Amino acid sequence: MSIVLHELVGADETRPFSPHCWKAVMALAHKGLPVERKAVCFTKVPEVEGGVSKIVPVIRDGSQVIADSFMIAAYLEQAYPDKPSLFGGDGGLAMARFVESWTNSVLHGAMRDIALMDIHNALAPADQHYFRTSREARMGVTLEKVAEGREAALKALPATLMPLRLTLKSQPWIGGSSPLFADYIVFGAFQWVRVTAAGVTLFEEGDPVADWFERCLDLHDGLGRSVPAAG
Amino acid sequence: MSIVLHELVGADETRPFSPHCWKAVMALAHKGLPVERKAVCFTKVPEVEGGVSKIVPVIRDGSQVIADSFMIAAYLEQAYPDKPSLFGGDGGLAMARFVESWTNSVLHGAMRDIALMDIHNALAPADQHYFRTSREARMGVTLEKVAEGREAALKALPATLMPLRLTLKSQPWIGGSSPLFADYIVFGAFQWVRVTAAGVTLFEEGDPVADWFERCLDLHDGLGRSVPAAG
Repeated sequence: MSIVLHELVGADETRPFSPHCWKAVMALAHKGLPVERKAVCFTKVPEVEGGVSKIVPVIRDGSQVIADSFMIAAYLEQAYPDKPSLFGGDGGLAMARFVESWTNSVLHGAMRDIALMDIHNALAPADQHYFRTSREARMGVTLEKVAEGREAALKALPATLMPLRLTLKSQPWIGGSSPLFADYIVFGAFQWVRVTAAGVTLFEEGDPVADWFERCLDLHDGLGRSVPAAG
Repeated sequence: MSIVLHELVGADETRPFSPHCWKAVMALAHKGLPVERKAVCFTKVPEVEGGVSKIVPVIRDGSQVIADSFMIAAYLEQAYPDKPSLFGGDGGLAMARFVESWTNSVLHGAMRDIALMDIHNALAPADQHYFRTSREARMGVTLEKVAEGREAALKALPATLMPLRLTLKSQPWIGGSSPLFADYIVFGAFQWVRVTAAGVTLFEEGDPVADWFERCLDLHDGLGRSVPAAG
């Protein structure tokens, strides 16, 4: 029986973009589990699985329903211990939280500044209204005002990526010799922009982070690459 | 037989301050191994163990000589697998590199801007000359010029610590339910400033990072606290 994954989409259901949902998609593929992906738009999230969560991804595995990408990965690790590990042990699970914390507080901020209007424009009209209202309330400024910082955010990005770049100097993946959930955490942030924002160059030429991202796109039979870049 | 640890000191040998050496000190204590700490000043580092390394810490364990705090921790993990783990598995070892990369590229920069003149002033005169010359060549500006950024660096610090703060919301240590080498990596940076810079308040009141740092100071019979704060 497949695991059901409720996954955020915009106007085009074939172009999922949510960084958090991509983490779950990659984690399920990493474990080699059959998945039934169900598209859900922003304004329908409260109806998912009887309203268990304000956010997606949500998975249903038999009688188990789990929300939140990290909790999903931790669940899969525990429920499917014989499949390839997502964390590489207890220390890896703990430190994946640090990678998540850096990604959420640093990288997502940069990605948001770069792609906010693109993300908005990728949504269906009803969701655009929800997105604008909720984001503007949270940020205290208009989407357009945030978008004015796009060039500055792009210019600052190479320095922002330094912790990732240094890591990739000593090993091919954040997870070490092979990818782990920590790689998918960071991958999700870049994939978010790749799928929504046309004509954006995130990486400088020769940046090892660019090479790592291309290798992430190749993983699991090119799962990430199966959605073409915006353009 | 004790493991010999060559550890950087300034004018006062009883007040070691190097963040990298503190990582090795904590790693050796974590493994419960007997240690003979040997003080070395900046200008004598090239003579350590016959000149194997441009940097300390360096350890000698029987016939094995290892330089670099991360390599030392990795060596101890492999050589003493029955002692408490420093990484919690292969994933933890890999992701400790990410914690190290963030610490070196983000946190050490902030700590340097806050405490650079204090670090200089803690050194013996001959080492002060070496420190000034090498650091000014690397940074392209005078120590005094960097020190002008002290207030700005202190003001920016709470935001800089966000990845750490978020991590500590989901678990008591970076290593999870108990400390691992990743905790010592970050601890070293704060200890560097604690030991050298009088009158500096690094954390805002109620910051979970402050609580974590105090708990780090308590570890291994108060090893970090055994050197009083500057003042």
